[in-house]
Amino acid sequence: VRALARGISQVEEGVPQAIALLQSIFPRTGNATVVGLTGSPGSGKSTLVDRLIATYREQGHRVGVVAVDPSSAFSGGAILGDRVRMQSHATDADVFIRSMATRGFLGGLARATNDSIDLMDVAGYDPILVETVGVGQDEVEVVKTADVVVVVLVPGMGDDIQAIKAGILEIADLFVINKADRPGADRLEAELQYMLALAENPERPRPRILTTVATENRGVTELRDEIQTHLQSPGGGQREARRRERARARLLTVLSDRLMERALRGPLAGEALDELVEEIASRNTDPYSAAERILDQLLGGGPTARTEDT
Amino acid sequence: VRALARGISQVEEGVPQAIALLQSIFPRTGNATVVGLTGSPGSGKSTLVDRLIATYREQGHRVGVVAVDPSSAFSGGAILGDRVRMQSHATDADVFIRSMATRGFLGGLARATNDSIDLMDVAGYDPILVETVGVGQDEVEVVKTADVVVVVLVPGMGDDIQAIKAGILEIADLFVINKADRPGADRLEAELQYMLALAENPERPRPRILTTVATENRGVTELRDEIQTHLQSPGGGQREARRRERARARLLTVLSDRLMERALRGPLAGEALDELVEEIASRNTDPYSAAERILDQLLGGGPTARTEDT
Repeated sequence: VRALARGISQVEEGVPQAIALLQSIFPRTGNATVVGLTGSPGSGKSTLVDRLIATYREQGHRVGVVAVDPSSAFSGGAILGDRVRMQSHATDADVFIRSMATRGFLGGLARATNDSIDLMDVAGYDPILVETVGVGQDEVEVVKTADVVVVVLVPGMGDDIQAIKAGILEIADLFVINKADRPGADRLEAELQYMLALAENPERPRPRILTTVATENRGVTELRDEIQTHLQSPGGGQREARRRERARARLLTVLSDRLMERALRGPLAGEALDELVEEIASRNTDPYSAAERILDQLLGGGPTARTEDT
Repeated sequence: VRALARGISQVEEGVPQAIALLQSIFPRTGNATVVGLTGSPGSGKSTLVDRLIATYREQGHRVGVVAVDPSSAFSGGAILGDRVRMQSHATDADVFIRSMATRGFLGGLARATNDSIDLMDVAGYDPILVETVGVGQDEVEVVKTADVVVVVLVPGMGDDIQAIKAGILEIADLFVINKADRPGADRLEAELQYMLALAENPERPRPRILTTVATENRGVTELRDEIQTHLQSPGGGQREARRRERARARLLTVLSDRLMERALRGPLAGEALDELVEEIASRNTDPYSAAERILDQLLGGGPTARTEDT
């Protein structure tokens, strides 16, 4: 557990050893089922994840959790004060919970999350639950390549608060109406059914809608079983396609990071970046021409010329 | 107006003419004040923006709005049904409202938003209000380089729903407690004051806290005036620093986009990307080694070797 925690910290910090570590474990990854859970703040995702962990533990699974939701109880969320809420699994060595701080430049969040999933996977945690808030673009990217995507809604909060990126609906495999004992649950389910009927896609089974009251542990076992059923259903799994998507996203993210690293160590090293920024800020050049200049310095004549060289 | 709308569409679609357009207008940009407004879904940001527009119109300003909040009334938000809400300024040619769909690969959102700001700026809109939800990483990146950043909170929603990225607090210039007629407004203000006192930074004035009831138009003129006061205050403006930050973020985003474009047109063209993805998905290689290979093909011997060449 300590080695895993250290590994994840290295990955988050992006130290050079982290890459060697990730490369060495990669062949042994891909075993764990990755369950993405997303929904707006206030939908009770964390409580649901907490109860889901318990039902997986009953079955003897070792459970990994990556929380990338700033409002999650697992990531210690909440802006006012830092009342870190109790974690009922904090003393269970077979539950590994990691909250992701969102980091610096573009794509860092998705990279760190996927790397952490790999590390937990190799350490024998399965399933791995990834909890994200369903609002931000990066957060959507993170959850969308999970083996199964669960979208959590809650009745009676109005459209505003429910606001979830349109793209989320397209990637949902299962919908959960949490806090289903609240007024408006039936109406929300009917609206959701209607919407799903409109969006019917012959290539995919229509997502099922489940209801839960996580605080009372109602519907949670059913959710766990439905996740399993979905993964094993013939057309439903899409596991291979999702995993290729994840591989593609990871490759492009890593490549993008490395390219920027080269630019920052090469043509933008030292004062060069600041000088260029000053030129742009003072309108002596524009970001597009400046980027083109760096591109030329980094790539020489571009891919065509490189091909001639080699 | 039509030319502006077309320009923004081109920018969003990333067509080649868009870059030429942005390059040609860039020297004439940088005039408009960019006001960033952020807060969680349900905080009433859209109504506040709507009322702010009206007070700016009273002063004769032409107002631009970029809405990157999926729950915004301006971006037509709300997942259930597509009840596009009424826009009270829809017929006013001196108000230009654009909602940003979030787009493809990394950083697209920030790029499209900044490009749209440039286009509105040159078209004579000033101020330009940028409304984002304060949760996602990309969304935070977008707002954080505005000339002034307004964070909108609302009483009585609990910490969960209020959840805003920690980083947002550090970039707030002004706090607004909207729906201030609700119970809990005083408590929220006290908590916020306490938190700001703890986070006191001698280099920056402590952000002021204003209260509004946007639906009743209370406190809105005061907010507009306070934004102006903040921008003109000696230590408060930070306008130059923010603008350098914006220039830096834009340069790096554009550079990153262009580098990836080169990779996708060069070593990853045709079947190459799919083949590499397949290799990763089947665990025959890992994303880091694969990226390294592409890097070598694209850059030859890397920056050092390039320097020797040139």
